[in-house]
Amino acid sequence: METAILLIQCADQKGIVAKISDFAFRNDANIIASDQHSTDPSNGRFFMRLEFCFDPLSFAPQQLEAQFAILAHTLQDATWRIHYVSKLDKMGILVSKQDHCLCDILYRWKSGELRAEIPIVISNHENVAEETKRYGIPFIHLSLLNDNKTGQEKQILSAVKGKTDFLVLARYMQILSDAFVSAYSNDIINIHHSFLPSFKGANPYRQAFDRGVKIIGATAHYVTGDLDEGPIIEQAVDRVSHRDNIDTLKRKGRNLETIALANAIRAQLEHRIIRYENKTIVFE
Amino acid sequence: METAILLIQCADQKGIVAKISDFAFRNDANIIASDQHSTDPSNGRFFMRLEFCFDPLSFAPQQLEAQFAILAHTLQDATWRIHYVSKLDKMGILVSKQDHCLCDILYRWKSGELRAEIPIVISNHENVAEETKRYGIPFIHLSLLNDNKTGQEKQILSAVKGKTDFLVLARYMQILSDAFVSAYSNDIINIHHSFLPSFKGANPYRQAFDRGVKIIGATAHYVTGDLDEGPIIEQAVDRVSHRDNIDTLKRKGRNLETIALANAIRAQLEHRIIRYENKTIVFE
Amino acid sequence: METAILLIQCADQKGIVAKISDFAFRNDANIIASDQHSTDPSNGRFFMRLEFCFDPLSFAPQQLEAQFAILAHTLQDATWRIHYVSKLDKMGILVSKQDHCLCDILYRWKSGELRAEIPIVISNHENVAEETKRYGIPFIHLSLLNDNKTGQEKQILSAVKGKTDFLVLARYMQILSDAFVSAYSNDIINIHHSFLPSFKGANPYRQAFDRGVKIIGATAHYVTGDLDEGPIIEQAVDRVSHRDNIDTLKRKGRNLETIALANAIRAQLEHRIIRYENKTIVFE
Amino acid sequence: METAILLIQCADQKGIVAKISDFAFRNDANIIASDQHSTDPSNGRFFMRLEFCFDPLSFAPQQLEAQFAILAHTLQDATWRIHYVSKLDKMGILVSKQDHCLCDILYRWKSGELRAEIPIVISNHENVAEETKRYGIPFIHLSLLNDNKTGQEKQILSAVKGKTDFLVLARYMQILSDAFVSAYSNDIINIHHSFLPSFKGANPYRQAFDRGVKIIGATAHYVTGDLDEGPIIEQAVDRVSHRDNIDTLKRKGRNLETIALANAIRAQLEHRIIRYENKTIVFE
Repeated sequence: METAILLIQCADQKGIVAKISDFAFRNDANIIASDQHSTDPSNGRFFMRLEFCFDPLSFAPQQLEAQFAILAHTLQDATWRIHYVSKLDKMGILVSKQDHCLCDILYRWKSGELRAEIPIVISNHENVAEETKRYGIPFIHLSLLNDNKTGQEKQILSAVKGKTDFLVLARYMQILSDAFVSAYSNDIINIHHSFLPSFKGANPYRQAFDRGVKIIGATAHYVTGDLDEGPIIEQAVDRVSHRDNIDTLKRKGRNLETIALANAIRAQLEHRIIRYENKTIVFE
Repeated sequence: METAILLIQCADQKGIVAKISDFAFRNDANIIASDQHSTDPSNGRFFMRLEFCFDPLSFAPQQLEAQFAILAHTLQDATWRIHYVSKLDKMGILVSKQDHCLCDILYRWKSGELRAEIPIVISNHENVAEETKRYGIPFIHLSLLNDNKTGQEKQILSAVKGKTDFLVLARYMQILSDAFVSAYSNDIINIHHSFLPSFKGANPYRQAFDRGVKIIGATAHYVTGDLDEGPIIEQAVDRVSHRDNIDTLKRKGRNLETIALANAIRAQLEHRIIRYENKTIVFE
Repeated sequence: METAILLIQCADQKGIVAKISDFAFRNDANIIASDQHSTDPSNGRFFMRLEFCFDPLSFAPQQLEAQFAILAHTLQDATWRIHYVSKLDKMGILVSKQDHCLCDILYRWKSGELRAEIPIVISNHENVAEETKRYGIPFIHLSLLNDNKTGQEKQILSAVKGKTDFLVLARYMQILSDAFVSAYSNDIINIHHSFLPSFKGANPYRQAFDRGVKIIGATAHYVTGDLDEGPIIEQAVDRVSHRDNIDTLKRKGRNLETIALANAIRAQLEHRIIRYENKTIVFE
Repeated sequence: METAILLIQCADQKGIVAKISDFAFRNDANIIASDQHSTDPSNGRFFMRLEFCFDPLSFAPQQLEAQFAILAHTLQDATWRIHYVSKLDKMGILVSKQDHCLCDILYRWKSGELRAEIPIVISNHENVAEETKRYGIPFIHLSLLNDNKTGQEKQILSAVKGKTDFLVLARYMQILSDAFVSAYSNDIINIHHSFLPSFKGANPYRQAFDRGVKIIGATAHYVTGDLDEGPIIEQAVDRVSHRDNIDTLKRKGRNLETIALANAIRAQLEHRIIRYENKTIVFE
């Protein structure tokens, strides 16, 4: 038996769930989980995640998708995709000097908590090379030479384009250009070390300290052309007080960053996220 | 247009969602929200909440229910009920001397946050009479005389049986007998001032203080014959420290109690809860 | 016995605690609680809250303060104040149409959780008049006439200046002018319905919805000339999801607003807050 | 300059802080942080943590302690200890098959977040050997043979007694005997994978699932003769729902366990904890 996950969005209209669940029923699929959301039942947009298992011998994936395409044509303004659990997503990782998110991801990956292939880890620092290689993952070190950002991004692109399903910026401290984001075209998940939209840009813990906030946060979001403005996937927070200095804010923040990013990656790998306008639907 | 909410549970099997959503589609219902859960797609139990609107002129509620009953007969071991949003639930409230939950409920009710009728407030203390009457709600004071618990429960039962859809124990410090719970037969929601199953029984804040916990909680649950053992609906927690004494634990706890109970009541009134074994499914 | 609370800040230097605790000891005071904080032991600023009880018959408050003034003269750049628990602070409240914070404050006040006098409630709406009067608190209704903001603020000032120790803006939707804030000169606590510094200004829940955040918040802060930029006293947060619309954000937000504001008021009344630069020290 | 931390508890009485801060002042110590707590100023018990730096050339540690002992003799029922930041504590670790806490501790230790020596890691499983040795830490594998618990504990004791300042049970699934706890005599910190006192004993996530709680937790506590009854140091919680099965409870729980245990270890290493009756004072 194969397990598949359908993610679909379309204009909301009567009968969508009936059509899709009937499709599953007629094809002898066993529904494991089904979640839907509508921004407005009368005029809004409809989102659905359907996790089901089926017999790939009696019903090949290509056949399944061809038949579903016919159904989807009857839905207004629909975009959809079917993912197969047997086919692991390829996750590329970019990281700079701070390695707490990287090490956390690799540990969870090794222990089976994150089901993915990791074909590549890329860094502009060498300190993470050993940790990466220990797990048997290819590592590329790309030092950032003067005025050579374009060249560096070309190297990254050639290493990940077509070879990864999405990228994770696990505390990657370079800003990827619009050109890179467009050229890569797949999802890129970033962890920003603040409770966005507070404290965008550089040194968010310094900004939080100066503002005297009583709660700090971390935000996992998709990267878009606008820095720190992409769709938010997950946020985590912790209390702080006048006793905290920038060092203890950073320490508490590392816990938030690793957990928010791990949760976002898990949602991505389990195909629980649908992007919509500048937001996300994250089915639990 | 009328809005209705179907709550159903049955043995999980293929085609349930297809049948139910097809039923809604054929009857021209507009699905507003749909949530489902299965404990196990192969052998488990299936739960669904379907919120939809329909035209009661072309399709009367009795007709709707009669037709749905035919469908439900085809599902194994099904129990279901359809609630109509236009028909407010009748919520009876029992309370003792501490009135923070009562006052919070009445404020939320008055401001429209909790959609219900409140036909009666009953207390074994008189201090809450004025507050209750101010809202125009009938109030009954039942003092607990010696050896007269049975008599008191009879009075309560005659005031609520058939006149309320469910009861809320808003810090009611008497233990209702099994006989009462059976005789009333509808849902009874209690707020216990601890993080169950920790600190059952009397004086939970004293117990928490003595144990030296670093987090306290409150638990809203359905009342069953076993004291503090009924299905949990909602829990809330807050951090405490060595600085807290029993008085500050109680103060922090009051916030938790009011919020956990208000959330549980809202879920009850919006028909988001399905009871199952000794647990609850609470659709968000 | 009288209980007093000393709040002091000065340049950090060796021997401060020794001097102050020796002062308490020599005067036969019993220290109930003592908290201190230093931004930096070598060059920083020192803050202290000392709660103690003493016999006012053998040692009058004026005498106590006169003697402490001599000690404080030996500390560099010191500002201090002694509050007496027997003398309740006078708290004025300004509120607009939404009354959830007001009702919460009045309930906590009545039940003894907030120890204060409330000499006046002022609103630009009449709907809160009844609730206020029920508690026996004088109420002033000030409608905002065209181009008459200056006149309205004059009326407020004459009602509170010299008659209140601090003001609470319990969802008061008018922006107080710099002139008013200067003229009043005492503390003004505001509750902003967002997690500052995110979503300053109008309609923060709309802003939060549009940004697609996964956590919302509320912020209690002191009012300064810069709108929503004053020192933060307390923040509270709650998780939200794609299921939340603006109405449910507002509902969840009301819980956060009432709790953050109540905590801030309690800290103010218990003299736990020291303002410093644009921040607060809040001793627990 | 040397930094030292004094932890002291005694019967509360007037003048304690004056004496101790005067002691620091006279000896030219610079107070970095000072925290105190009293269970009751009239009849209670007093606790203090004083972090200060001094010149060990002009004032040797032995001299400091000898002089402080004289002061402490004037305090009723006092116990105290001075720790020196330059002298790292020796932390021994016991672990079974599940290595998430161990790996987290070692990562934090390597990155400088936990300042300690780790002279030994002991396990009844071999799978953690490689990870431990990679950090250059001696590893002992002790398989549990039939009826040989006493023998195993003797081996452990000989490996840690006199060679470690405290032990961490980082998901060590053997129950240490009373005899071992007595013989070791130093602190032993355990992480229990539930929100104690809920779900003591075996399989707490199974117990939590069966009870249908809406929040799960983890508890770091000192080990005493009574299983899962020792003084609680730190607790962490997370929300769960009907969607969670035992596997996802365990996954969420691992995050809680690592964070609660890391926070407890940091508090231990920074000498922020004072044990008292069956509780802890944890200065922040």
